[in-house]
Amino acid sequence: MQNIEYIFNPRSIAVVGVSESNFAKLAFLDPLIEFKYKGEIYPINPKVKEISGLKAYASILDVPGPVDHVICCIKASLTPQLMRECVIKGVKSIHLFTSGFSETGEEKGIRLEREIVDIAREGGVRIIGPNCMGIYCPRSGISFDNSFPKEEGDVAFLSQSGGNSVELVQLGSVRDLRFSKVISFGNASDLNECDFIEYLAHDPQTNIILIYLEGTKDGKRLINALKEAAKRKFIIILKGGVSDAGRRAVASHTGALAGDRSIWNAFFDQLGIVQAQDLEELVDMALAFKHLKSPKGKRVGIIGVGGGFGVLATDNCENEGLSVPSLPDKMKKKLREIVPEEVDPGTSVRNPVDLSTSGWNLDIFSRALKTLADYEGIDFLFVYTTVAFGLYRGTNVMVDMLIDTIIEEKKSIDKPLVVVVRSSGDPEVAPFVHDVQERLLKAGIPVYPSTIRAARVMSRFIWSFLKRR
Amino acid sequence: MQNIEYIFNPRSIAVVGVSESNFAKLAFLDPLIEFKYKGEIYPINPKVKEISGLKAYASILDVPGPVDHVICCIKASLTPQLMRECVIKGVKSIHLFTSGFSETGEEKGIRLEREIVDIAREGGVRIIGPNCMGIYCPRSGISFDNSFPKEEGDVAFLSQSGGNSVELVQLGSVRDLRFSKVISFGNASDLNECDFIEYLAHDPQTNIILIYLEGTKDGKRLINALKEAAKRKFIIILKGGVSDAGRRAVASHTGALAGDRSIWNAFFDQLGIVQAQDLEELVDMALAFKHLKSPKGKRVGIIGVGGGFGVLATDNCENEGLSVPSLPDKMKKKLREIVPEEVDPGTSVRNPVDLSTSGWNLDIFSRALKTLADYEGIDFLFVYTTVAFGLYRGTNVMVDMLIDTIIEEKKSIDKPLVVVVRSSGDPEVAPFVHDVQERLLKAGIPVYPSTIRAARVMSRFIWSFLKRR
Repeated sequence: MQNIEYIFNPRSIAVVGVSESNFAKLAFLDPLIEFKYKGEIYPINPKVKEISGLKAYASILDVPGPVDHVICCIKASLTPQLMRECVIKGVKSIHLFTSGFSETGEEKGIRLEREIVDIAREGGVRIIGPNCMGIYCPRSGISFDNSFPKEEGDVAFLSQSGGNSVELVQLGSVRDLRFSKVISFGNASDLNECDFIEYLAHDPQTNIILIYLEGTKDGKRLINALKEAAKRKFIIILKGGVSDAGRRAVASHTGALAGDRSIWNAFFDQLGIVQAQDLEELVDMALAFKHLKSPKGKRVGIIGVGGGFGVLATDNCENEGLSVPSLPDKMKKKLREIVPEEVDPGTSVRNPVDLSTSGWNLDIFSRALKTLADYEGIDFLFVYTTVAFGLYRGTNVMVDMLIDTIIEEKKSIDKPLVVVVRSSGDPEVAPFVHDVQERLLKAGIPVYPSTIRAARVMSRFIWSFLKRR
Repeated sequence: MQNIEYIFNPRSIAVVGVSESNFAKLAFLDPLIEFKYKGEIYPINPKVKEISGLKAYASILDVPGPVDHVICCIKASLTPQLMRECVIKGVKSIHLFTSGFSETGEEKGIRLEREIVDIAREGGVRIIGPNCMGIYCPRSGISFDNSFPKEEGDVAFLSQSGGNSVELVQLGSVRDLRFSKVISFGNASDLNECDFIEYLAHDPQTNIILIYLEGTKDGKRLINALKEAAKRKFIIILKGGVSDAGRRAVASHTGALAGDRSIWNAFFDQLGIVQAQDLEELVDMALAFKHLKSPKGKRVGIIGVGGGFGVLATDNCENEGLSVPSLPDKMKKKLREIVPEEVDPGTSVRNPVDLSTSGWNLDIFSRALKTLADYEGIDFLFVYTTVAFGLYRGTNVMVDMLIDTIIEEKKSIDKPLVVVVRSSGDPEVAPFVHDVQERLLKAGIPVYPSTIRAARVMSRFIWSFLKRR
C-alpha cells in the first residue's frame, strides 16, 4: 500500500486551462475560493492576467512557489507538454479533467494516455484520471461543485464516473450524509480503484466507503484491497456494467473492462459486501450503515397508521427476505390493552400492528411502539407514516408530533428502527417532508420514502452482518 | 352484470353521524359542499339543528324529500337500526365508513355484518363497505377528501383499502392523473370487487382501471370479470397479501381471503394484466398506459447527458428484460456527424448515446434524438436528464430548454418515448421538478424519477401488449 494522503493535502493547486468564463472556473477554480482552500491557488492561462481575482500565470513553470497539485482542463493533445512541465516543477499529483484518451477506444487516445502516464511515472507525478472530476475533500477545501456541503463527514465515495460523483453527493447531502473524501477517478490510468480503496481502508476520517465501479484492470489486487477494506470499514458497491449492453457502455465511458456479473456477485457476496442497484439505493444503504447497530436477525415488527399501508409494507418486507412474525397471544393482549377493540375497531395487533386512527393519539402510539420494541421475538422495528394522507387539513401537525414521539421513544429502544415517510411528491409538501426527514436523521433514525426501499435496505443490511458474523 | 350506475348519481345524500367537529364532516360532508354536489345534502344528527350551514335532521326518516344515498358514520352496533330505516325510506345505496364488522375476525362483528346485509338485501338497498372510504366521483361532486382534484379524468381506482385509495389519488394527481371513479370498498359485504369491475369495464368515462385488491370470496366470478374488463380497458393490479405474513395482515384488515400468490400470478399473467408492487408503481404504470401507444418490441434507444448515468440506465433496462441493442456503423457515423469526437471526446454513440456536455446544445440534442428515433432497429426511446446535477448554477435553465426540445421533437416522433428526470430531492428544487414533469405529461410524455422505475414500467407495459397481441 502506498501512502497517497498528500494528494488530499496539497500546499498549492494550479488550475490549468481556466478562463474567466469556462467550465474549469465554475467546476474547479471557484470552488477552491468558495471552500476557503488554505493553500495557494494559481490559475494558469497565457492569455490573461487575472481570473476570479487571482493572478494568472502563463505556465506552471512561471509560478513563483511550489505547485503540489495540478488540475488539468486543457485539450488532450496538449497534455504531454504539461506533464513534462509538471515533472520539471516537481508537481506531486495531477488531476486530468480532460477527456479524449483511452475511453474513446481509438488508438490515438490510447497512445496519448500511455504517453502521459510514462512521463508521469518517470518523473514521480501521480495521475488522477483522466476523464474525471477529481477530488472533493471539504476538510482541505477542495471541491468540484460550489453547492456541495462545506462540513465534512465520515462517508467516502469512490466513483469511476464524474457525473455520478456529483449526483451522489447531492442525493446524499440532502439526506444528511457528509463526506470525508469523494474521488472521481475516470480512466484510472495511474492511480486506480485499488490505490484509493487501500488508502480509504486506513483513512481515520472514513467509516463508510461507497463505490461506483465500472471495471478493473487488476482483479486480483482489487479482491485483496476490498477484502482488507471490508475488515475495517462498511463498503457498499454499485457495479456499473452488469448487463451485456452495460458492459459495452462502460467500455465507451471509462474504457474499463466490466467483467462478468456472476463473478462479481460471487465475490461481493463472499465478502459480505452489499451491492446497490442505483445511486439512490447507495444513499439508502449508507443511511442504514451510518445510523444502525448490527441487528440480531431478520424478524421485523411493523407498526403504523393504516391497514392497506401495513399490508403492503408486510409484503415488501417478506418479498425482500425479511420475516414478519405473527405476535403471540400474550403480546396481542398487551397491545389490546393499549387500543381496546371497542374504542377503535379498525386496529389490528397481529403484526403488522395497524393502530388505525388511534395511532394519531401520541400516548397510544408511544406505548404500542415501546411494547412492540420490548418483545424478544422481533429484531428490529419498522414504523410507517405518510404525509400524502390529506384527509385532515392538520395532517402535517399530526405527523410532526408523531415524529417527535418516535425520536423520544427511540432513546430507550435498543433495537434498530427505521421509519418510512411517504409523500405525494407535491412540491408544497416537500419542505415539510425534508424537515421531518432531517429531524429523524439527526436523531440517528434512517428514513426512507417508500416501504420497498426500506425493506430492500434492511434486508441487505442485515444480510451483511449475518454474513460477516 | 348489474347496472350500478345509480350509486354514482344519487339525487340526494344523507351523512349519518356527522357532527360539527368529527371526521365524518371533514371526510364526507364538507367535500360534498366543496365539490359542488348538485343534489340535496342532509346531515343526520339528532343533537343539532345545523352542520356546515345545512339543516340537520334527527333521522333519515325525518328528511322531507327522497334519500338516494347514505354515508354511514355511526357505531357498528347502531347500524342495523339505520339499515331498517334505509329500507323504509327507499334508500338505493349506503356506504358504511363504520368499521367493527367481519374484519375484526370476531364472531360478534361477523354476525353484525351478516345482519345488516340481510336487511339490505331484503329491502333492496345496496351496500358499499363496511370499513371503507366509499366513493370519489368528481363528475357528480362526491369525494372523501377536500384536496382531491375537482376535474375528472379517465382513470378509475378500485381499492379494498381506504387509506390506499386516498394515497393513490394524491400520488396520481400530482403526476397529472385525473379520475373517473374511485371506489374504496372495504369488506365487500354486498357490492364487491366483481360488481365494480363489471361496472367499470363498461363505464364510458373510464379507460384505465387501477385495482388494489386484498382478496376475493368468489374467485371464479372475479376471473371472468377481469377477463371481460381486460378486453375493453387497461388494467393494472396491486395485489395486497402476496406474502404469508401479508395474507395474515389482509385477514385483519378487510377480512378477505388473500389466496395463494402463484395462483394469482398465473392468472394475471395469462390475461396480460400488469401487476404493480406498490402504489407508486401503480401510478408509474398508469402514466405509460395513459400516454403511450403500443410499442413494436422491447428494443430501447437510450440517450442523454452523462456516461455513468447512461451505464446505469442500460443496466436497469437490461435487468428488467428490455434490450439495449448496439448501433450499426451506419448509425454511429450519422451520430458522429452531429457530435464529432474532436469537438467533444466525452461523447459515445454506441447506445446508450451519451452526448456528454454537447447534449446541452439544443441543436445537437434534437438532431441526435431524431436520428436515434428514426432508426428502425429500436422500438422506443428512453431519454435521461437530471436536475440534481448542480455544476452550473444555470442547470435549471438548461434542463428547462432541454425539456422544451424533447416536447417539440416528440411531435414528429412516432415511437413511444419516456423521460427520466432525476432530482436530488432538495425541497428548493421540488417546484422546478414538478413543473418540468407537468410540462412533459401535458405533452403526453410519461416521466419518471429514476431509471429503475422507468425500466420496470416499460418492461411490463411492453410485456402486456406482446402478451395480448
